[in-house]
Amino acid sequence: EHVSLFHEGAEQYAMDMTSVPSKNVQEIAQKTMEQGLFAPCMVGTLESQFLKMQVSLAKARTCLDVGTFTGMSAMAMAEGTSDNGHVVTLEFDDKIADVAEASFKTSPVGHKIQLVRGSALSSMEKMLANGDTFDVIFLDADKENYINYYNLAMSGLLSENGFILADNSLCSLLYDSDDARSQKLHEFNQHVKNDERVEQIVLTMREGVTIIKPLK
Amino acid sequence: EHVSLFHEGAEQYAMDMTSVPSKNVQEIAQKTMEQGLFAPCMVGTLESQFLKMQVSLAKARTCLDVGTFTGMSAMAMAEGTSDNGHVVTLEFDDKIADVAEASFKTSPVGHKIQLVRGSALSSMEKMLANGDTFDVIFLDADKENYINYYNLAMSGLLSENGFILADNSLCSLLYDSDDARSQKLHEFNQHVKNDERVEQIVLTMREGVTIIKPLK
Ligand SMILES: C[S@@+](CC[C@H](N)C(=O)[O-])C[C@H]1O[C@@H](n2cnc3c(N)ncnc32)[C@H](O)[C@@H]1O
Ligand SMILES: C[S@@+](CC[C@H](N)C(=O)[O-])C[C@H]1O[C@@H](n2cnc3c(N)ncnc32)[C@H](O)[C@@H]1O
Repeated sequence: EHVSLFHEGAEQYAMDMTSVPSKNVQEIAQKTMEQGLFAPCMVGTLESQFLKMQVSLAKARTCLDVGTFTGMSAMAMAEGTSDNGHVVTLEFDDKIADVAEASFKTSPVGHKIQLVRGSALSSMEKMLANGDTFDVIFLDADKENYINYYNLAMSGLLSENGFILADNSLCSLLYDSDDARSQKLHEFNQHVKNDERVEQIVLTMREGVTIIKPLK
Repeated sequence: EHVSLFHEGAEQYAMDMTSVPSKNVQEIAQKTMEQGLFAPCMVGTLESQFLKMQVSLAKARTCLDVGTFTGMSAMAMAEGTSDNGHVVTLEFDDKIADVAEASFKTSPVGHKIQLVRGSALSSMEKMLANGDTFDVIFLDADKENYINYYNLAMSGLLSENGFILADNSLCSLLYDSDDARSQKLHEFNQHVKNDERVEQIVLTMREGVTIIKPLK
């Protein structure tokens, strides 16, 4: 059963009045259903439109997608970047990575997306050592590591005007309070709130999305 | 009584985990209370942080604030713009405009804000004729005129990479269904949804905020 932050109808009405997702994004949703993968993992069509528009309004060129699943967030961000933009997306489950890669291959923005397999933490550490930077870093993998991902972003993976988007930040209200993820997400929220290097807003959209921006 | 899109606690938790508003913004909230003005008109501290961050992430230089009230949205956008940025804010109620102007005067970003008195429609028509353009246009005045404001924005007031933010877009769910504003806002949402020149997302934050961006 779907637990929600909203009174009935609010989210559905917002979706109805929002742009219809691209064919690429719709196909990913369909494939995820067909293959019997756990669909609630997907960012969904409302949030994918949000990601695309945030990337595009900020004129972001490089994006890091932490937690690929079947590829919806990577696809949406690729659609939002400029023509010479690119998205690196991280996934440690090979079977799921195969599904995502198949979708990227048949999409007109697929050439912008690079999927990196393996642990997100070690991939990020390698990129940091390599001097890679990103204009947008989207956190959506294992909740237990959000603080680690955040710290890596703040240690140099984020470009000068870059910002972080963290998914599920209101899930501490949605999961059972004895669910470890609930506690981990609350700790993450407090970690960000107490970090004087940044400003942030927790958006009450879907399961909560936090936008975090280093202060100048 | 406060009608809300959210289950109890969701909005409050989001506020608790969001950056504390600036002294400027807090003072406007306080003055509005003290003077017995209708506080629910204000965008509030959560949405003001959203406005500030959207302006700043998009590196917007020029902002148009349609509906000043006591100045919170104008102040937040001024805080988000670059050093050489500016905000034009429109208000037809002289008494309220006086309150806003007093706050702008004592604020460190006040020099970025120009308050224009009179009907928002005619002020926008004049600016359009004058060739003025804005990177962000925030709609928050009379709901009956949203479509007119939108059309003026789309006729040339919006700069090349500019975008529109429209407040209260989910109020069609919050007002009584026989309230004329409810119908007008629903018409506005449909107008945007049917406009093939733009893409948009209706955010389920506060009373609904739509981000609208012309397609390239
Ligand atoms: C919530 S899903 C991501 C949803 C995706 N952003 C979308 O738009 O559909 C989380 C994904 O992160 C992957 N993941 C979890 N922990 C990981 C880790 N430590 N390293 C790499 N991938 C991980 C999971 O296998 C899962 O596919
Ligand atoms: C909802 S309030 C704006 C709140 C404001 N953005 C804030 O952050 O507090 C709407 C304001 O628009 C003004 N207004 C309404 N219709 C107008 C019009 N046609 N021309 C100019 N101002 C108008 C009202 O007097 C009121 O102060």
